[in-house]
Amino acid sequence: MNKYWSLLTKKLSPYEPGEQPQDRKYLKLNTNENPFPPSEEVLSKIRGSVSDSLRLYPDPNSTKLKSAIANYYDLDINNIFVGNGSDEILAFSFLAFFKDKNPISFPNVTYSFYPVYCNLFEIGFNTFPLDCNFSIDIEKIDTNSGGIIFPNPNAPTGVYFGLSGIEEILNKFPDIMLIVDEAYIDFGGASCIELIEKYNNLLVIQTFSKSRSLAGMRVGFAIGHPNLIMALNRVKNSFNSYPLDTIAIEGAIGAIEDNDYFVTCCSQIVEARKYLSNELEKMSFHVLPSKANFLFVNHPKLDAASIYRKLKESGILVRHFNNPIIDNFLRITIGKKEEMILLVKSIKSITGVDHV
Amino acid sequence: MNKYWSLLTKKLSPYEPGEQPQDRKYLKLNTNENPFPPSEEVLSKIRGSVSDSLRLYPDPNSTKLKSAIANYYDLDINNIFVGNGSDEILAFSFLAFFKDKNPISFPNVTYSFYPVYCNLFEIGFNTFPLDCNFSIDIEKIDTNSGGIIFPNPNAPTGVYFGLSGIEEILNKFPDIMLIVDEAYIDFGGASCIELIEKYNNLLVIQTFSKSRSLAGMRVGFAIGHPNLIMALNRVKNSFNSYPLDTIAIEGAIGAIEDNDYFVTCCSQIVEARKYLSNELEKMSFHVLPSKANFLFVNHPKLDAASIYRKLKESGILVRHFNNPIIDNFLRITIGKKEEMILLVKSIKSITGVDHV
Repeated sequence: MNKYWSLLTKKLSPYEPGEQPQDRKYLKLNTNENPFPPSEEVLSKIRGSVSDSLRLYPDPNSTKLKSAIANYYDLDINNIFVGNGSDEILAFSFLAFFKDKNPISFPNVTYSFYPVYCNLFEIGFNTFPLDCNFSIDIEKIDTNSGGIIFPNPNAPTGVYFGLSGIEEILNKFPDIMLIVDEAYIDFGGASCIELIEKYNNLLVIQTFSKSRSLAGMRVGFAIGHPNLIMALNRVKNSFNSYPLDTIAIEGAIGAIEDNDYFVTCCSQIVEARKYLSNELEKMSFHVLPSKANFLFVNHPKLDAASIYRKLKESGILVRHFNNPIIDNFLRITIGKKEEMILLVKSIKSITGVDHV
Repeated sequence: MNKYWSLLTKKLSPYEPGEQPQDRKYLKLNTNENPFPPSEEVLSKIRGSVSDSLRLYPDPNSTKLKSAIANYYDLDINNIFVGNGSDEILAFSFLAFFKDKNPISFPNVTYSFYPVYCNLFEIGFNTFPLDCNFSIDIEKIDTNSGGIIFPNPNAPTGVYFGLSGIEEILNKFPDIMLIVDEAYIDFGGASCIELIEKYNNLLVIQTFSKSRSLAGMRVGFAIGHPNLIMALNRVKNSFNSYPLDTIAIEGAIGAIEDNDYFVTCCSQIVEARKYLSNELEKMSFHVLPSKANFLFVNHPKLDAASIYRKLKESGILVRHFNNPIIDNFLRITIGKKEEMILLVKSIKSITGVDHV
């Protein structure tokens, strides 16, 4: 049947994204989307880019978008790379920095796309165990590592790793790349972008899909020393000249420029996270400390898979993972306050657990 | 400087797309874009998709778009794959079907991205020489080939290879994949999509960037046996869950549904090609027979690079390649009739060549 497939293709274990059901309407708390839509300014900028010139290719270098990002972070345009979602940038980064190196290192609980990229590009890897609080213990990272990557805050735990820890890693491993995947950094963590001027082996990857409310537009960016950006450009230009379409470029420019709206949305999400966290703790859930737009929780007496199923039946999607280390946890995306109230109510009614 | 780069990255020779100048306005006849914009229906469908739901991820399977394409070609949705431009699909195909195989085969004059993918994914290749008319001679294809790929019509020549020739290849090489890259098929050639029911080793790749006037939206598709589509999905899901954004999906659906507009645009381009071809031949240019939306031409007495430069100075961009086999040729995209009249006038004034 599969004789035309490459050996590689036969060996792949593709990533499974959270459900994006097309059939019925759910309260989607399963893929860490922003509950707030893009601002009116952004939507109108996007509408304004719908024109006859869609017959033409986009700028292959997305120069205007890179400029807008450089401007926002007070960096040079040569520090910026953009891609078709941060997942594409991660894929390019694995090829650009991890291919042909010693096995790379990432935590044993982390974004489950990392081992998938390793399989796709035939890159070796070792995982290092997180401590009992799901925090990174630098001593546990293989000293012969060919490269290090982790999300900060980590996925799917939400646990944040401070800048001093990041600098400690950079100082301990000056000869290999550290990639910090900051998809969730805007919900309370401090970005390590400020460290890129000091460490030319640090690449920071961010996305417009979470804090910037543009998951539907597929835009991510990376920030680092110009030499690292050059490597990413070499890979990108060996793969697809035009990964970002004309409209996505405009939408992302709009989103990075509308800073007030972004700040307001992020702070409302942080508020709602605090509310949900308190409510769940009152119900005796164990809630990991989160600086992301989701909570990672479990309960000493309740089965996570069963809560997941019952919530789904009642029209609420949360995320449950089959990884044995975390299969009694649920990852719950933070929505609007009223959605969190609804969720709490549903959990109470499903589980029969209430607080005093 | 580059110690953080992978060895692979150091060895890459990235593809160079045609110029997309952002500084001044040119008559762009260099990247085979459609001179006609997307139809009003398509633009309004795109505008209609600009909504709050851009905060959500797109459907990772692009099911509605696959259905529209399946419907158009009277095929099953399992015969259809979609990607972020046909370049992304080509990249996935090289991994899915050519990786770990014997060196693959493509013509010595062809789309110059193919060797770039081979370098990126460490796939061996051999080129086979075209005959003196730039046509494929099946006898010249390595009988131990691990896979075959070519554009039809070929790029950058525009020369079309008939379906009987394609069947001859499929019959001669039943154990390896044949990928036919039909980016330019809608300008007068017959698609080999009809052969996919008979040959389960045939993958046909098309794009919305040329005949469908949507280069700015980045959408391509592939058609083949469900087993081949499955392989592409495995690779895609190991690379990026959501390569197509919400708006691009809607734009492409609009474009495939607006068939009348598509047919009208294509036939006007075929008309303009005929006009330009005649005019150039009157000026003693050698014009290869083209079924694409471009002409590949040279002149016994005039230097192609110099015509390219002078046209650029006068505000017209055409494409000149540095490949020594074709460095005295120009590739000229077919525009609207009035643009072709302007081009002819410019060439006459630049070269001093006129017809009697």
